[in-house]
Amino acid sequence: MIKLGIIGAGRIGKVHGESITNFVSNAEVKSIADPYMDKETETWAESMGITGVYKDYKKIIDDIEIDAVLVCSSTDTHAQISIEAAEAGKDIFCEKPVDLDPARIQEVIDTVEENGVKFQVGFNRRFDHNFKAVKDAVEAGKVGDPHIINITSRDPEAPPIEYVKVSGGIFLDMTIHDFDMVRFLSGSEVEEVYAAGGVLVDPEIGEAGDIDTAVITLKLKSGAIAVIDNSREAVYGYDQRAEVFGSKGSVRVENDRESTAKLSTADRVEEETPLYFFLERYMDSYAEEIKSFVNALENDEEVPVGGEAGLKPVLIGLAAKKSIEEGRAVKISEVE
Amino acid sequence: MIKLGIIGAGRIGKVHGESITNFVSNAEVKSIADPYMDKETETWAESMGITGVYKDYKKIIDDIEIDAVLVCSSTDTHAQISIEAAEAGKDIFCEKPVDLDPARIQEVIDTVEENGVKFQVGFNRRFDHNFKAVKDAVEAGKVGDPHIINITSRDPEAPPIEYVKVSGGIFLDMTIHDFDMVRFLSGSEVEEVYAAGGVLVDPEIGEAGDIDTAVITLKLKSGAIAVIDNSREAVYGYDQRAEVFGSKGSVRVENDRESTAKLSTADRVEEETPLYFFLERYMDSYAEEIKSFVNALENDEEVPVGGEAGLKPVLIGLAAKKSIEEGRAVKISEVE
Amino acid sequence: MIKLGIIGAGRIGKVHGESITNFVSNAEVKSIADPYMDKETETWAESMGITGVYKDYKKIIDDIEIDAVLVCSSTDTHAQISIEAAEAGKDIFCEKPVDLDPARIQEVIDTVEENGVKFQVGFNRRFDHNFKAVKDAVEAGKVGDPHIINITSRDPEAPPIEYVKVSGGIFLDMTIHDFDMVRFLSGSEVEEVYAAGGVLVDPEIGEAGDIDTAVITLKLKSGAIAVIDNSREAVYGYDQRAEVFGSKGSVRVENDRESTAKLSTADRVEEETPLYFFLERYMDSYAEEIKSFVNALENDEEVPVGGEAGLKPVLIGLAAKKSIEEGRAVKISEVE
Amino acid sequence: MIKLGIIGAGRIGKVHGESITNFVSNAEVKSIADPYMDKETETWAESMGITGVYKDYKKIIDDIEIDAVLVCSSTDTHAQISIEAAEAGKDIFCEKPVDLDPARIQEVIDTVEENGVKFQVGFNRRFDHNFKAVKDAVEAGKVGDPHIINITSRDPEAPPIEYVKVSGGIFLDMTIHDFDMVRFLSGSEVEEVYAAGGVLVDPEIGEAGDIDTAVITLKLKSGAIAVIDNSREAVYGYDQRAEVFGSKGSVRVENDRESTAKLSTADRVEEETPLYFFLERYMDSYAEEIKSFVNALENDEEVPVGGEAGLKPVLIGLAAKKSIEEGRAVKISEVE
Repeated sequence: MIKLGIIGAGRIGKVHGESITNFVSNAEVKSIADPYMDKETETWAESMGITGVYKDYKKIIDDIEIDAVLVCSSTDTHAQISIEAAEAGKDIFCEKPVDLDPARIQEVIDTVEENGVKFQVGFNRRFDHNFKAVKDAVEAGKVGDPHIINITSRDPEAPPIEYVKVSGGIFLDMTIHDFDMVRFLSGSEVEEVYAAGGVLVDPEIGEAGDIDTAVITLKLKSGAIAVIDNSREAVYGYDQRAEVFGSKGSVRVENDRESTAKLSTADRVEEETPLYFFLERYMDSYAEEIKSFVNALENDEEVPVGGEAGLKPVLIGLAAKKSIEEGRAVKISEVE
Repeated sequence: MIKLGIIGAGRIGKVHGESITNFVSNAEVKSIADPYMDKETETWAESMGITGVYKDYKKIIDDIEIDAVLVCSSTDTHAQISIEAAEAGKDIFCEKPVDLDPARIQEVIDTVEENGVKFQVGFNRRFDHNFKAVKDAVEAGKVGDPHIINITSRDPEAPPIEYVKVSGGIFLDMTIHDFDMVRFLSGSEVEEVYAAGGVLVDPEIGEAGDIDTAVITLKLKSGAIAVIDNSREAVYGYDQRAEVFGSKGSVRVENDRESTAKLSTADRVEEETPLYFFLERYMDSYAEEIKSFVNALENDEEVPVGGEAGLKPVLIGLAAKKSIEEGRAVKISEVE
Repeated sequence: MIKLGIIGAGRIGKVHGESITNFVSNAEVKSIADPYMDKETETWAESMGITGVYKDYKKIIDDIEIDAVLVCSSTDTHAQISIEAAEAGKDIFCEKPVDLDPARIQEVIDTVEENGVKFQVGFNRRFDHNFKAVKDAVEAGKVGDPHIINITSRDPEAPPIEYVKVSGGIFLDMTIHDFDMVRFLSGSEVEEVYAAGGVLVDPEIGEAGDIDTAVITLKLKSGAIAVIDNSREAVYGYDQRAEVFGSKGSVRVENDRESTAKLSTADRVEEETPLYFFLERYMDSYAEEIKSFVNALENDEEVPVGGEAGLKPVLIGLAAKKSIEEGRAVKISEVE
Repeated sequence: MIKLGIIGAGRIGKVHGESITNFVSNAEVKSIADPYMDKETETWAESMGITGVYKDYKKIIDDIEIDAVLVCSSTDTHAQISIEAAEAGKDIFCEKPVDLDPARIQEVIDTVEENGVKFQVGFNRRFDHNFKAVKDAVEAGKVGDPHIINITSRDPEAPPIEYVKVSGGIFLDMTIHDFDMVRFLSGSEVEEVYAAGGVLVDPEIGEAGDIDTAVITLKLKSGAIAVIDNSREAVYGYDQRAEVFGSKGSVRVENDRESTAKLSTADRVEEETPLYFFLERYMDSYAEEIKSFVNALENDEEVPVGGEAGLKPVLIGLAAKKSIEEGRAVKISEVE
């Protein structure tokens, strides 16, 4: 039985806590820590059978019974906590992004290596049933050599403007998942980025120095071309589609819906809109990624999404940002 | 160049006239006859290059230049005209139903045989792209031995009550196409029929002695079971679907729509309703059936939908009628 | 916290045990009993936090701490255990069918009423996301008055022949779910049944006195007509579809698949087959039905699927059996 | 009755000839000219009722009975013939591209204006049922303000290498249709173009100085962003999809197939591949564009696809070419 500590008791920390309690039979959450620990979270922890409830995450780092930590705190603390955990010999599951500064991520990677611990980054979409199916088809050679990768990734609504201001910008906050997906699905590295963007959803986002609509073209080492389109507001729901087109064909996935119901009336034939909320849409993938982490620990195997997977999308995001600022294609080597 | 005469200048007669003129390169319509021949039809005939325009169909029967006739007149005249045409040595394409009386249909079949002419019945749906695809899959063995045949056949709106009164009833007017489809798709004969029906759309249809909603179960010689569901009013359009389920799988077809457009809004994801009007839905199949008839003539081959195909569905229809009346399953042999 | 005892530790008993432990926050399983209790089940029980593990179900009936029992034992013991549990004042969740003999089911219903306990029958499909969506659309009046209800219900493979022999026949074992679904979706009672069936999948099933393929037509009190088609073997997977067609339109649901992936190659465009295993297909519905039961207990409300829902489908099944035997439509009143 | 002359008797000239004969009731083809006029074409012309058959197109230009000409000759002759036809007072339907040189297209536009004749460019896809449905939804405001336009346009197989060499390159030969589609669907003009491309299908295409795979990002005056992905070889067929995403939702269209048949077997659920051949896919749109041209003539109305629509996509294509060459985003104003 692997013993875990969760650092950060916000939404995603609790999601992981519930996944582990309900679905991961070979692990248990021993402790949870959050500087803003409150009564509600304590009650929740009790219902999950979590016995250690702290404000100070160091209590978890220092607990020799704990095998691994889940870093679910605010982004600006990910690197520091990961480094401390690595130095304490804990295996680490760290939410994305590891940091907004590539140098700092490299530091985490180096510390992890020096201490011989495992380090997995929380790109949960890789564990989603749909994207996994695309990856499986590509790996099985069903589409041949990938030529074009098409990702549509649109949020149902823009986050609060206060969040936008500290988010690091659309590319590091939202598109970072899609950058990871391009690497995952193509099996190739990104060499050059061109981004076109605008403020079409909400002028306040523009005033906050960000954009809300973007199309990003990525040239890959393999020669393939990937294109991502993003919007902060798809009124019909969370739009999460992908296609890999190659020499032998194409594989693509559509959105998930609550049911398959199709209603035909005098006016139209209608179906349900895509699932709206990201936790509803990706709930299973959160459980799957933690299972994969725990299994890697149990079997002492490589984690499926390692440190490099934490670093590369941040570099791509910085290149995309630079591309928007300078109105030209930017090589990844320019931002390394 | 095969020379055709059309007897009956109503809607379906004109459909055939236009199909031949535009799409059947090895045939031409020489003449058309209708007791209610009017100015509008004459103008139409001229635009089609049809030179003979008559009130009396005998002018077509007697024209030795004409190779074959299309019998598109009212149902009660189909048999008489077919017999006269056969005796005059003309090949015949006859609209469905050949007659409401099986004995009379048999008389037509006998006369056709005696005179060695060809006789095709107008079950156009066999030539529809969707139903042909089902048939092809079945014939290619892709679903193995058929076990269950499912046909959904619903009109967009009920015909005028005056028409209902003289139609011969829903089974001989509407379901007859589906009875033919069961024979066509299954490649087997119907042995027994059970029909459940009701008046759910319009009480006037009930007062006219007919029903407007029906589910008909057919036991086939092969052991397979077919089931047809009919309604006189599907408000969303002309609902024409079919499935053949067998030992190796299932093949099914959906409705046709004007376009593949899918609109996603905050409320719903919507598509277009099925094509509403039968002529729009089945236009191509009308051209295809005439092509097949003309090709059979040109190559002196068997017609694809012969006299027996005209007789059997009428027998099934009569058995269905008897089943409703007597509230029990009825064998085809009881109505032969 | 509602305390539950599970009687019967077979597949479905364990499914309920896991659902309750993982998803039902206001209930817990205190005990489980099974005459064939083994080491494996004991280990499983321990991992679920179930403290009472017995061979004799009476230990559960007699435990005054237990509020309600889940009767998951073999069908022939459902009635007896339910009666004993009712007499002990326990609320009851009973797997379907309650019994194969309507008189015995009535006895259970009477005992339940006399003792003022709750009694829910395990028709889980009512809690499935797809069928619930159909029901919701019907209840919201979106299809108007139902005219035709179409249910396709095909198993991926036939059960072992030993099971077939004691199953009570296809109608009481398999179609019983569909009979319940017709009542649920239509909101109307069945008056008359006509069944056509055959042995097309496996001759051994015929030798065991059963059929493996069936089409059942049901006339409802409302005037609507329902039709169910069943097969014991759909090689492509568990085929579970339904449509309600009415005066204002139609609503229908398709099968669930593992992912939405669509692969286009030179030969074809392909998707995944429907989920194959019933536990995979209906897992969520098992959790939902138990939640609904526990909530009815907690709030002292009526259970959503009561005793009558346990009785009626058995009557319909017996009528269907009689219909096959006598080759005619059979009224429900004939078997009551 | 409008009298037409067709100049160029290749594939597309004949397509128009047949469309007019079969579907355009208010026009007729009087003459056809082609420098390589042969026996086969003469026979075809006769079967279409075309009486004038010439090698020299000037016979058509000089025929005062002819109201309008269809310029279906090789691309390098489009401008010259159009100018001569305009000067002879003929209305003109000209195949795309009008010319590869924008200055020469402007010359045609000017001559057309000076002579007060009508000039329509052959962007047939605007008349396709699917793309029209997208346009209609956008114009009806159903998706609100367009934010992202996504076009997937992939040929089933690359053209012969000899054709590639004289085609003007992928952007002027193939993407030109998509550039027109962006203008049509968005109702906005393109301001800036960034193209990423590669040779992934066939190295010979690279040796011929062209590319075979491309992703093109277009910034529009409205602020919207369009993205086109092209491939010269989609092995599964002609892939022609589009989406317009906006403030109120999204509308998208899928490929057309021969039938709606869905086959479920033990291995997979399969559908037909998209229509493969562009003439099969777009046949109806060719008839519709000619109808729209003839109707504009008959009613003396503006043609739906005028000279500017012939010029702009060529400019966009030249900008895309420059973007590939210089590895940067290129403004349309740079190539005007």
